Amino acid sequence: MITLYDLVFQDDRRPSPFCWRAKFALKHKGLGWRDEPMGFTEKQKIAFAQSQTVPVIHDGPHVVKDSWAIAQHLDSAYPEKPLFGPARHHAHFVASWVDSTVHPALFPILVGDLYERVRPVDQPYFLDSRGKRLGTTDFAGFQAKAREKGVAAFCAVLEPARRVLKEQPFLSGEQPAYPDYALAGAFLWARVATPLTLLEADDPVHPWRERMLDLFDGMGRKAKTA
Amino acid sequence: MITLYDLVFQDDRRPSPFCWRAKFALKHKGLGWRDEPMGFTEKQKIAFAQSQTVPVIHDGPHVVKDSWAIAQHLDSAYPEKPLFGPARHHAHFVASWVDSTVHPALFPILVGDLYERVRPVDQPYFLDSRGKRLGTTDFAGFQAKAREKGVAAFCAVLEPARRVLKEQPFLSGEQPAYPDYALAGAFLWARVATPLTLLEADDPVHPWRERMLDLFDGMGRKAKTA
Repeated sequence: MITLYDLVFQDDRRPSPFCWRAKFALKHKGLGWRDEPMGFTEKQKIAFAQSQTVPVIHDGPHVVKDSWAIAQHLDSAYPEKPLFGPARHHAHFVASWVDSTVHPALFPILVGDLYERVRPVDQPYFLDSRGKRLGTTDFAGFQAKAREKGVAAFCAVLEPARRVLKEQPFLSGEQPAYPDYALAGAFLWARVATPLTLLEADDPVHPWRERMLDLFDGMGRKAKTA
Repeated sequence: MITLYDLVFQDDRRPSPFCWRAKFALKHKGLGWRDEPMGFTEKQKIAFAQSQTVPVIHDGPHVVKDSWAIAQHLDSAYPEKPLFGPARHHAHFVASWVDSTVHPALFPILVGDLYERVRPVDQPYFLDSRGKRLGTTDFAGFQAKAREKGVAAFCAVLEPARRVLKEQPFLSGEQPAYPDYALAGAFLWARVATPLTLLEADDPVHPWRERMLDLFDGMGRKAKTA
């Protein structure tokens, strides 16, 4: 029998989002568990797991702390009903994240440099279409103002990728796949458009970007840049 | 031979992040292509695809527009070297997105209500630990101020999930899996802590949340709420 240590509030309320992940994962696998509520002042209950936080599970010989580690343990110990598929939909999510979060954080700090590099014949189109989007056609001024906070804001937006890339070379693990390509596209957009430095060398995203530029015989690195 | 229509700037620069995704995906599959550069004023080149934007590919009988549709086409037409795996790493990304984006957007608008529901014995711990994090122990005041913009900001943060959920019932496709559980955990955290309305009924995330509350014999819906 699995024991799950779950954070408890007044009147047996269970708020912890990380414990909820563990409960959903257990249910997904069709596994029951013994519930062990723990308040903030009862951390001695999970000292055996060398953990300060819940969820913790005790599963036969296995003591597992941290919701992501628990998910991985359950999926490998109970391989029926995989917890992590299908990959296509998850890749779609990452691409949607790039579209709706990374690109909007980049566009204002690129727009002036982009405009300068549009082919002259296409500049009126860019001026009209992007001017409507931004409410101004002073792209250089808009960009300058956006850069005051924009580079830091852009770096903040990368945090989900940063967390994954602290642990592994690519978003998709040991080898790159579509989520890596979606995010690399954003960086190549910037690289082709502007000489602006976006990533500090000590950012875990930086060596990943270098790897992406090197991929496929340096396809990205060889692209004509700003 | 595949033809790829790729946005072109001055001096043959190729900025489009979506075209870069398509190029990486083609390289991933080991496929060559014929390059067809297109400027903003040459959209007649892709009129045959009923598209206003690139990338567009022409692959034998298949005309495919939109970078995500192209990725899916390539993965089904050329099943060697899957573009979308392994699912575990992508699920990790989604969980990291919830941790680093959704939770921080929720915490300030929940903190006062959370504090009220902590067991009295645990309240000094919460006061000290969360007070240090926020720089104040006036959680009710902090929460009230955060709610002025915070609910809209929280909804904005959900955009990557919203885009996926417009097209399918769960983040993981037709059936829920770990990314759904990670995001559902955030909503259950809020549900247990506060009566505040977070989602409008016409938000595509709303029916997904209802489905998540119903899952596993209503495990989430039956949880003791605020």
